Amino acid sequence: MINYKAPLRDYRFVLEEVLEVAQLAALPGYAEATPEIFASVIEAAGTFCEHVLLPLNASGDREGCRYESGVVRTPRGFKAAYDRYRQDGWTAVDGDPEYGGQGLPHTLYYCVAELLFSANLSFAMYPGLSSGAYRALRAHGNAEQQALYLPRLLAGTWSGTMCLTEPQCGSDLGLIQTRAMPDGDGVYRVTGTKVFISAGEHDLTENIVHLVLARLPDAPPGTHGISLFLVPKFLVAKDGTLGIRNAVSCIAIEHKMGLKASATCAMSFDEAIGTLVGAPNTGMHQMFTMMNVSRLGVALQGLGLGEVAYQNAVAYARERLQGRALTGAKMPGKVADPILVHPDVRRMLLTMKANTEAARALCSWIGLSIDVAEKHPDDATREAADDLVALLTPVMKAYFSDAGFTAANLALQVFGGHGYVSDNGIEQLVRDARITQIYEGTNAVQALDLVGRKLPMHKGRLLKRFLGIIGAFIQENRASPDMGEFTAPLGEVVGELQQVTGTLGQRAAQNPDEAAAVAGEYLKLLALIALAFMWARMAKIALAKVGGDENDFYQAKLATARFFMARILPETASLTAIIAAGARPLMELDVDGF
Amino acid sequence: MINYKAPLRDYRFVLEEVLEVAQLAALPGYAEATPEIFASVIEAAGTFCEHVLLPLNASGDREGCRYESGVVRTPRGFKAAYDRYRQDGWTAVDGDPEYGGQGLPHTLYYCVAELLFSANLSFAMYPGLSSGAYRALRAHGNAEQQALYLPRLLAGTWSGTMCLTEPQCGSDLGLIQTRAMPDGDGVYRVTGTKVFISAGEHDLTENIVHLVLARLPDAPPGTHGISLFLVPKFLVAKDGTLGIRNAVSCIAIEHKMGLKASATCAMSFDEAIGTLVGAPNTGMHQMFTMMNVSRLGVALQGLGLGEVAYQNAVAYARERLQGRALTGAKMPGKVADPILVHPDVRRMLLTMKANTEAARALCSWIGLSIDVAEKHPDDATREAADDLVALLTPVMKAYFSDAGFTAANLALQVFGGHGYVSDNGIEQLVRDARITQIYEGTNAVQALDLVGRKLPMHKGRLLKRFLGIIGAFIQENRASPDMGEFTAPLGEVVGELQQVTGTLGQRAAQNPDEAAAVAGEYLKLLALIALAFMWARMAKIALAKVGGDENDFYQAKLATARFFMARILPETASLTAIIAAGARPLMELDVDGF
Repeated sequence: MINYKAPLRDYRFVLEEVLEVAQLAALPGYAEATPEIFASVIEAAGTFCEHVLLPLNASGDREGCRYESGVVRTPRGFKAAYDRYRQDGWTAVDGDPEYGGQGLPHTLYYCVAELLFSANLSFAMYPGLSSGAYRALRAHGNAEQQALYLPRLLAGTWSGTMCLTEPQCGSDLGLIQTRAMPDGDGVYRVTGTKVFISAGEHDLTENIVHLVLARLPDAPPGTHGISLFLVPKFLVAKDGTLGIRNAVSCIAIEHKMGLKASATCAMSFDEAIGTLVGAPNTGMHQMFTMMNVSRLGVALQGLGLGEVAYQNAVAYARERLQGRALTGAKMPGKVADPILVHPDVRRMLLTMKANTEAARALCSWIGLSIDVAEKHPDDATREAADDLVALLTPVMKAYFSDAGFTAANLALQVFGGHGYVSDNGIEQLVRDARITQIYEGTNAVQALDLVGRKLPMHKGRLLKRFLGIIGAFIQENRASPDMGEFTAPLGEVVGELQQVTGTLGQRAAQNPDEAAAVAGEYLKLLALIALAFMWARMAKIALAKVGGDENDFYQAKLATARFFMARILPETASLTAIIAAGARPLMELDVDGF
Repeated sequence: MINYKAPLRDYRFVLEEVLEVAQLAALPGYAEATPEIFASVIEAAGTFCEHVLLPLNASGDREGCRYESGVVRTPRGFKAAYDRYRQDGWTAVDGDPEYGGQGLPHTLYYCVAELLFSANLSFAMYPGLSSGAYRALRAHGNAEQQALYLPRLLAGTWSGTMCLTEPQCGSDLGLIQTRAMPDGDGVYRVTGTKVFISAGEHDLTENIVHLVLARLPDAPPGTHGISLFLVPKFLVAKDGTLGIRNAVSCIAIEHKMGLKASATCAMSFDEAIGTLVGAPNTGMHQMFTMMNVSRLGVALQGLGLGEVAYQNAVAYARERLQGRALTGAKMPGKVADPILVHPDVRRMLLTMKANTEAARALCSWIGLSIDVAEKHPDDATREAADDLVALLTPVMKAYFSDAGFTAANLALQVFGGHGYVSDNGIEQLVRDARITQIYEGTNAVQALDLVGRKLPMHKGRLLKRFLGIIGAFIQENRASPDMGEFTAPLGEVVGELQQVTGTLGQRAAQNPDEAAAVAGEYLKLLALIALAFMWARMAKIALAKVGGDENDFYQAKLATARFFMARILPETASLTAIIAAGARPLMELDVDGF
């Protein structure tokens, strides 16, 4: 069975020591968001995750969702857990107080989200989708839509979906065929089939709010002709009471590799009644409002899965006795040493630890930047924060979902055959993690977003801004001899990235395949730099605190930072070599030669 | 649904053009093993795999094995398929004619094995285990054991197992607790519990021959006190007729991530009657007779899974229309281009193709070397061939099982969400492939075998021999300007390996952790060299044949060879950097710091 303890100490380290989250309380509306509030909310979320959600994760996987005649039943215990989740206010953490939210920073919601994803990813999908729908309607809905829907989404009595994918289109939303016909009085009739709709139908809430991409009759072709519609499962009267069932139904649920307790639905819209969200033909823009934060959410899923995989692998490596340390028995009184003595087991554990702890710091930093970008009174400060978020969102989505899958597989490898059998719960982590590399835009799509959109944006301002922050940090710490082992490799890799970026820009100007051919490698290179920067920042704090209270905690941070620099960061050597090779090796082979 | 066609053309290329398999017919007993026989046997195996085994793969996964009161039932259709497999002679391909085998080269059996593993890995486990038991008894059994058991194993009416693992010991077999008490007349009573026993119980054969590692009462502790016992499910009279049930029973089967149609059994031996195989306390040696060829078998599993993953991913990439080529629409008449136009999809497909085709060549070369090592009249030639086999077996087991898992995951990524759902069969490949990185010695154990045993063996003769062959090839082709793009990077990486090997030897002499800490990276480095060598050899053949018949086939080989050199081989840059970092980053962190 999987065990899990929320990483409370590490969150205090990241939030209070590394990022100085206290600054958030200075932003308008966030006066209550003190470090103490952060710590107590995260602790309460941890208790809920450990005691309510974790015990339902394995049973939810075994049982899965059941479909019968349009009705979807979640696994035993999910409804009760969801009711408690909702009643305890977890659906409203960072919601607008105007609509019943608690008005806490988004940063805090992301910390809570990591814990949810560690304990039960399938469960967390349901409120996660509602949160996306809330954000889209909060940003683009009209007053009536907001007044009717936002309070109920925040209360969690209604849930939300994002209906994008159709059988013939996933990555290429320009191919959407679902149609919306005006029916007078601001009402539209939506007709089409959507697939892979998470939480499309279930038994957790009274109503489900579908946000549906569809085409108006006169829409231009491609992505510029897509509009967003709000289509409720039950029609809603002006006072919020539920009316008759709308003409939208779940026609099947998918049988999947993992995430089995999350209902993945095929939805049929048959002249379903909907209303337009925002202006016609701007659906792609509105969808990205949901999508960007959802991508950060997937990054947090990778982090959460990495954390729970790590905790269980360490526990197993401490108790499993097998072989002897090569340098002499460490526990001569026992039949064998714990496998934690073996260098390769340490390599696997440290890989998880080094990625997970840096990911937590980076996600929290970007969370903070989202709050700053939304609330800070100074335009330039908001812009700077927004640049960071825009640049690093695809990087974090892709790299952390990859790292989460890798961590789950490393945990399985630490367990050996005992990880491959289902009883220990590790193989479920692998199966659940696998989808994170695909949904909310495949990781290849993230890389194209980075290289094709984020790099050229504002003449390269986003990247320059990020590298400027790193450069300033290196400069600041130039006089510290202890920091050299962290800042030197970081500075070197930043130099390589700058060189590569220049070459790539020149090549891509002549042939767009050149950018696409190495986009994935470029994204990894930038991710490694971001993580190395986080480790350098964390090492700085740790260096100042070793020798005092909790010496072991800070020594461990330093050892992990060194591991990252010595064993993970060198992947950049291969990445730069591969980027240098360019597009030709990929494009030479004729279609028939495959 | 998964589709599969046996790679007949590629096998002709590898066997007839690259490796000149005709030379085998010169070995004693192999006169019949002409290239024509190879081609016709592989074709027949392909037909069997495509029409009989492949259709049972998805249903076998869905249904799994069923356990009730000690009885294990394989999924529907498995018994009928096994009967046909046996009747068609597939259990006897490379068996000794003295015991009813067909006496064909092992090389040919390995080619057939790849096809079996592509079509239905779970099914192939049953005869695969029998083959291991046959080899162990053929090498170490006494005359009576051989006369009774070998013909029935080759006929496939009886099957075999390897009973090694116990609940408290997997990688560390020194901890084995199963006991064997002499009971007079050469009979032993075996008592203990074995777990993770593939094919430990099933309904495919009349009898099951368990080869069991156990301790005699006076055995020294650790691995030097382990003996091998033959324990049949049903006792066998001297004329081969079956007697009463022996005191060995299956007490449970595992529920696993994948490989669900292969019964993984917990076996209880309760004073079961057995006979000793070989001398007392030499069980580890005998076990390695099975294990070495089994490791090559796992390498072939990785290859087979990589091939079937590739074939399905290519087919999907041709038919799935999504987005447009960045350089302009390739199919302007359709709503979108096939995803095969996208550089990242090509990267994924080419990664599978480049690994798979080189793996096939390397496995076949090592297969050939096994035959030469067994049959060649010249001592030095046999020794040279055996050196290659010993050096590269752990390399191939680890690297190809990793590559098979990677290929399955790349195929899933090409399919996107359609790969994550179960209908298309791709996610099953991922789940099935995952165990290959663990069983027959985890991939970390393979790396330790390479670095700790194979490198120092005969003062480094094995590696010197292999690098000598590569050096001679580079030398031979020095005058060919066309070969430079393949031999230059190969030569460069060989130089790096030599340097790394020297440094590693010095460091490891002072601290054994130094070797263990980078063993995995060293193994990968050697694997990449072996594959680069195969691509250079294949490129040489292709260069001589482009412009003639089948020009496209040879052009594809060259493009794939170039892809390997430009996009896969550069991983060596990171590996050498990580190896240089040594053990310290892994060993610094205190046990409590994890």
